[in-house]
Amino acid sequence: MADIAKVLQRADDNLNSSLEKLFELVRIKSISTDPAFKAECRRAGEYLVKALTDIGFDASLRDTPGHPMVVAHHEGASADAPHVLFYGHYDVQPVDPLELWEKDPFDPAVIKEESGREIINGRGTSDDKGQLLTFVEACRAYKEANGSLPVRVSILFEGEEESGSPSLKPFLEANAEELKADFALVCDTGMWDENTPAISSSLRGLVGEEIVVKAASRDLHSGHYGGAAANPIHILADILASMHDKTGTVTIPGFYDGVEETPHNIKESWDKLQSTNDTFLSDIGLSIPAGEKGRSVLELTWARPTAEVNGIKGGYTGEGFKTVIAAQASAKVSFRLVGKQDPAKIRENFRAFVKSRIPEDCSVEFHPHGGSPAIQLPYDSDVLTKAKTALSDEWPKPAVTIGMGGSIPIVGDFQKMLGMDSLLVGYALEDDRIHSPNEKYNLKSYHKGIRSWIRIMAALAK
Amino acid sequence: MADIAKVLQRADDNLNSSLEKLFELVRIKSISTDPAFKAECRRAGEYLVKALTDIGFDASLRDTPGHPMVVAHHEGASADAPHVLFYGHYDVQPVDPLELWEKDPFDPAVIKEESGREIINGRGTSDDKGQLLTFVEACRAYKEANGSLPVRVSILFEGEEESGSPSLKPFLEANAEELKADFALVCDTGMWDENTPAISSSLRGLVGEEIVVKAASRDLHSGHYGGAAANPIHILADILASMHDKTGTVTIPGFYDGVEETPHNIKESWDKLQSTNDTFLSDIGLSIPAGEKGRSVLELTWARPTAEVNGIKGGYTGEGFKTVIAAQASAKVSFRLVGKQDPAKIRENFRAFVKSRIPEDCSVEFHPHGGSPAIQLPYDSDVLTKAKTALSDEWPKPAVTIGMGGSIPIVGDFQKMLGMDSLLVGYALEDDRIHSPNEKYNLKSYHKGIRSWIRIMAALAK
Repeated sequence: MADIAKVLQRADDNLNSSLEKLFELVRIKSISTDPAFKAECRRAGEYLVKALTDIGFDASLRDTPGHPMVVAHHEGASADAPHVLFYGHYDVQPVDPLELWEKDPFDPAVIKEESGREIINGRGTSDDKGQLLTFVEACRAYKEANGSLPVRVSILFEGEEESGSPSLKPFLEANAEELKADFALVCDTGMWDENTPAISSSLRGLVGEEIVVKAASRDLHSGHYGGAAANPIHILADILASMHDKTGTVTIPGFYDGVEETPHNIKESWDKLQSTNDTFLSDIGLSIPAGEKGRSVLELTWARPTAEVNGIKGGYTGEGFKTVIAAQASAKVSFRLVGKQDPAKIRENFRAFVKSRIPEDCSVEFHPHGGSPAIQLPYDSDVLTKAKTALSDEWPKPAVTIGMGGSIPIVGDFQKMLGMDSLLVGYALEDDRIHSPNEKYNLKSYHKGIRSWIRIMAALAK
Repeated sequence: MADIAKVLQRADDNLNSSLEKLFELVRIKSISTDPAFKAECRRAGEYLVKALTDIGFDASLRDTPGHPMVVAHHEGASADAPHVLFYGHYDVQPVDPLELWEKDPFDPAVIKEESGREIINGRGTSDDKGQLLTFVEACRAYKEANGSLPVRVSILFEGEEESGSPSLKPFLEANAEELKADFALVCDTGMWDENTPAISSSLRGLVGEEIVVKAASRDLHSGHYGGAAANPIHILADILASMHDKTGTVTIPGFYDGVEETPHNIKESWDKLQSTNDTFLSDIGLSIPAGEKGRSVLELTWARPTAEVNGIKGGYTGEGFKTVIAAQASAKVSFRLVGKQDPAKIRENFRAFVKSRIPEDCSVEFHPHGGSPAIQLPYDSDVLTKAKTALSDEWPKPAVTIGMGGSIPIVGDFQKMLGMDSLLVGYALEDDRIHSPNEKYNLKSYHKGIRSWIRIMAALAK
């Protein structure tokens, strides 16, 4: 078994060169959505292949119809050590509006803030170049200090995460045998706060549905027709208002099929985070939890399903007034799913719910969008328990098991296509400004992130 | 007393020259909203001053800060004849999109349609140049056949009706003494159908209110916040849905204060028009009257108040999907008023209704628009009865007293500022395409319209 102290020391000693690696990777403008940066994306992939080869990985760049994948493998110290697949992405978001950046997004440095906090500025420092390098640098420290890795490691870095991952599923399918491991490590999530590491064990699914209510064959003058002609905005408002009852419960028949109550001990651990809860709403200028009554904001966003209107449009919406009765009105409605809710049934039930509220002489059109079930990882698996202890050893406060309100599609893909669960650990912070100007990653996240993976790998090998 | 047959004969004999007058006036491009046509507007006014002077009116062009007014006076045959103020407007709507016109909008002619129906094409033929000339030409026939007019006539033609009449109120105020008559004749309305003349005796008022519901301080990601953060679209939908109960009745407290039931005999006369009622909805692709249950579409649009949403907007409304929870959502709501409903109270009650439905941590903004009471003219005045008989004598079917769903602000201004009621008679038809490409006026409307005013003037003098 490895002497962890030695490996951690090595990681500390490596910090400057680890930073230099991150700077080099951030300087590569791997913006996947913009064809002008195609060569830069490839260069980022090549950089990672070289970095992994240097540590002793069998690493290669794999072409796809889009940007290439990086795939690498390394044996573990013993034959019965678990096999993990580490996932990250080397592509980044565009940087416009460029004028809002205080520093060049592709010229990273360590900056000491007035508070004393040290940050690394630059596009992709947090999402996801800094995060994926915490793992690569953990492997390097292990190899340098110990000559081996405690677990068998495969790595998959994609270059299209910020543009919808079009090549990912075909690639997983074509390389399932090579990529399948005991479980995946996904490093694209955050900490609870800067002292409290977190493991995300549930991710809500998503069903989207655009509905278009159609009434008269043309826009009408409300003076001439008002009071006699059906108004599609009224019909739509009635439908949307009737989706929830007064307790915030969704009224669509069958909506809660497959929803399970969160275990008591998990809810209790969330309640302990409640002080942070207050700022959850106050940060966005609100104070009263909407949605189902009697549940905390953390439970509401992590473990309860929702029906939300994301957009609505109808009639005259310009400056001033136009007394028109619109011919049609539309809304985009999405459902966040938990537990075993079935996206297809949710869609079907919602459509029936809407249709039953459309007057006979009017009509409705549906346009589907997305449809993915929730991911619920075991709250108490061996892997999760080991990782939690390892993280708790590294950080000032014990690790917490949290949920995520949104989905990370790769986790579902790994589950469905490769039959493996994921362990979601990351060191990003709420204020990292990912996807926005002035993205940063805390130096502490990077340094202790590397150390965390060392501890996790060691724990998993036990 | 005039020999009406002789006057009517004169109108018939004059038809070609009456048409030539209309053509000349339509050729003048008096588009009041476009400053490029300022001189043309003036030219239209001058043309009318000359036409009226030629018949013996004391006519003049009166400057305003905008386009000039035409004011003219003519004595009646006897000193105790009633004094009427005839109102019309010489300005027209813009003509774009020009490519949708089958003929030059400013080159009118009489065109025989396949059905045999003869129409006069061109911008303003129906709204309002053709209509106002029916009265001028009736006066001309009277003068030519009889040497005098049976009633004392004042005339007011404005040139800003299509651009909101900004100069009208100040002009009425400054010239109240000169313009005040026993009652006004307003020729800017239509027939019930091409064989049935109509007198409009009620016009609904209007109150508009834009409401903006504000929740979080910024747009939120629905994955992260959905279920816990207030969604302003939900709040707005609830408010709008709760404005009506299941019977279509408006639920805002005090909303029906001042609403009176329409006299039984008037409702009966409307029921006789019911065959046309069916096409009222089927023409616009509908079949079931919305709004208050148990009332005909004519009653609903002429004599009942409404609360209508004219526009709604919130969140992401572009192509595809964005799982956002909006920071705000807005709706434009208008109320059509009847009877003695008080616009100020309606606005106040609506605001209270909305505010009571805003969660404590959210807010609402109101932006007022318009605010005019309904006009209810007596259903059985002497003037109305005389005009009804005169119209019934001219047209194939008896005249009907109808309501109008929309408002004609001048009628309220005459009532408030000059203390006189209006008689609303016009010969426009539903398919005249006013404000649209290919505007037309039926030759029959023009010809029998002239004859109708001759009969009405004669009847009023009795």
